[in-house]
Amino acid sequence: MSSAARVVSGMRPTGALHLGHYHGVLKTWLALQQDHDCLFFVADWHALTDGSGAVREEAVYDMVVDWLAAGIDPQRATLFIQSRMAEHAELFTLLAMVTPLSWLERVPGFREIADQHPSFGRLGYPLLQAADILAYKAELVPVGQDQAAHLELCRELARRFNHLAGRTVFPEPQAVLSDAPRLPGLDGRKMSKGFANTIGMREDAESTRAKLLRMPTDPQRVHRHDCGEPTRCPVWPLHQAVSPQAQQEQLAADCRAARTGCVDCKQALLDHLLPQQATWRERAEQHLAEPKQVHWLVEVGTERARALARKTLREVRDCLGLATP
Amino acid sequence: MSSAARVVSGMRPTGALHLGHYHGVLKTWLALQQDHDCLFFVADWHALTDGSGAVREEAVYDMVVDWLAAGIDPQRATLFIQSRMAEHAELFTLLAMVTPLSWLERVPGFREIADQHPSFGRLGYPLLQAADILAYKAELVPVGQDQAAHLELCRELARRFNHLAGRTVFPEPQAVLSDAPRLPGLDGRKMSKGFANTIGMREDAESTRAKLLRMPTDPQRVHRHDCGEPTRCPVWPLHQAVSPQAQQEQLAADCRAARTGCVDCKQALLDHLLPQQATWRERAEQHLAEPKQVHWLVEVGTERARALARKTLREVRDCLGLATP
Repeated sequence: MSSAARVVSGMRPTGALHLGHYHGVLKTWLALQQDHDCLFFVADWHALTDGSGAVREEAVYDMVVDWLAAGIDPQRATLFIQSRMAEHAELFTLLAMVTPLSWLERVPGFREIADQHPSFGRLGYPLLQAADILAYKAELVPVGQDQAAHLELCRELARRFNHLAGRTVFPEPQAVLSDAPRLPGLDGRKMSKGFANTIGMREDAESTRAKLLRMPTDPQRVHRHDCGEPTRCPVWPLHQAVSPQAQQEQLAADCRAARTGCVDCKQALLDHLLPQQATWRERAEQHLAEPKQVHWLVEVGTERARALARKTLREVRDCLGLATP
Repeated sequence: MSSAARVVSGMRPTGALHLGHYHGVLKTWLALQQDHDCLFFVADWHALTDGSGAVREEAVYDMVVDWLAAGIDPQRATLFIQSRMAEHAELFTLLAMVTPLSWLERVPGFREIADQHPSFGRLGYPLLQAADILAYKAELVPVGQDQAAHLELCRELARRFNHLAGRTVFPEPQAVLSDAPRLPGLDGRKMSKGFANTIGMREDAESTRAKLLRMPTDPQRVHRHDCGEPTRCPVWPLHQAVSPQAQQEQLAADCRAARTGCVDCKQALLDHLLPQQATWRERAEQHLAEPKQVHWLVEVGTERARALARKTLREVRDCLGLATP
């Protein structure tokens, strides 16, 4: 494990995971854990940057349960919770001293909300992310397209710190871009809890079926005998995420030739999705029945992560002339 | 000790202490340690906010030695080093989430340097100070006139956090304003290492005498027989800081009546200052000869401070829905 490239990635505990999380992030994590040294963490401090108030502690462990249900293997990946790591806060504080304010002010996501009375922590959000990553000298970081600018800042910061220190303390982490296109939700916008357009990974069959059957399809396919075009259909990206490749091709051809109707096509999606959700629910229930074991997994992960972060902090303090206790 | 009001104060390790430190800050500390629960810390993280590069670790312990030489009593006051306290960084990070960016942008000291490419840490400097203070729920904070705005921010922040938490987590710390006027240096500007106009507390007699004899005096007293006016004389504030009250009155009267010349007046100052410096040097040398003891004092102080800060952090995490390990 130690010779494999190190990956660090976090997820904010925003509630039960949905299809968008699974196809946007977790599939990448599942692939990476096969042959990389992965550290995955619940980003509960980040959940506070939007000023939405307190974190729900249940949501933190619930997220870990969802990861385990997805197939994240604690034997392969190190799982931990950000807020247990004072080391991230210390590195954030130290990096703050060498980070030009202007770098943070011009991060794209920030400029858009600059007139909405953001907090100091919101401005520093990409810097805290950089501390999360650099604390472990990560070499690879899975990022969505909207986080690319944050990783670029992290890389700039690694270069700057190395330059000031006169030696290579931090490797410049590389982006692992997910090849999954952004999954739209029930209304065609990005699937997001905030838009109330999600399909949960633990959602039951009845609720999932009802949501899916209400979804609009190709707006130009008005009648059953009209030929459809999958790329115009909001349901199609869900097929691309969930259904096997061969069936996708068959369904696309049938749609274009008006051989199947939209309800049949949605049923085909349900045939794949409902068993996935059932498996997920079943695994999650097993873990929920053993909360002590989940806590223990996190403790073990936290201790391993802490040992790594402490080593980095020792080096950083040394560069800044600060003694390590 | 525990029922006395708690005082927190820090000093940046900028090198050997000078008369300005002693009369501006340390005399206040000496008075406070008599009947308050004092925590005094070396603010080595703060020394990084101006982007001047690395801290010198020797400077950190040297500062503690100077405190001991001044008469700070480790039996009465808790002495520690900021950078040993990851708790301050964690509180800084958490408070960042509830601190409006605009509060920091309008702190007077910041606006003046806003166009000089400040770091993110420089913008957050008053917030880190607030974390230093609030981590111990300090009730009193000695501040110079130039830090009053920072303490006001800390008080605002305490109110805001208490309001969001729905209970009083932090008392609002009160300022202890020093009644000593700001001590001018050799050139009449504020005594500061940056202006190279200081008289060091450990400076030897020869160097001190030479510096003092070169100092200008009342510019309107051109000849020995001209009557002088102490309030126009740059040496006078040094007398006010160093010489006994009765002698000050005598010297002022003699100056106004042209009974004494400026060299005699400076000699009278040296008669008080040189023994103070000699005592300081002697005490400092005793502590410098026992570095292990100084380290041990700091360790003991650090452990006491940590216990207090941990208790506060537990409460803060609880308010934010974050678990304490």
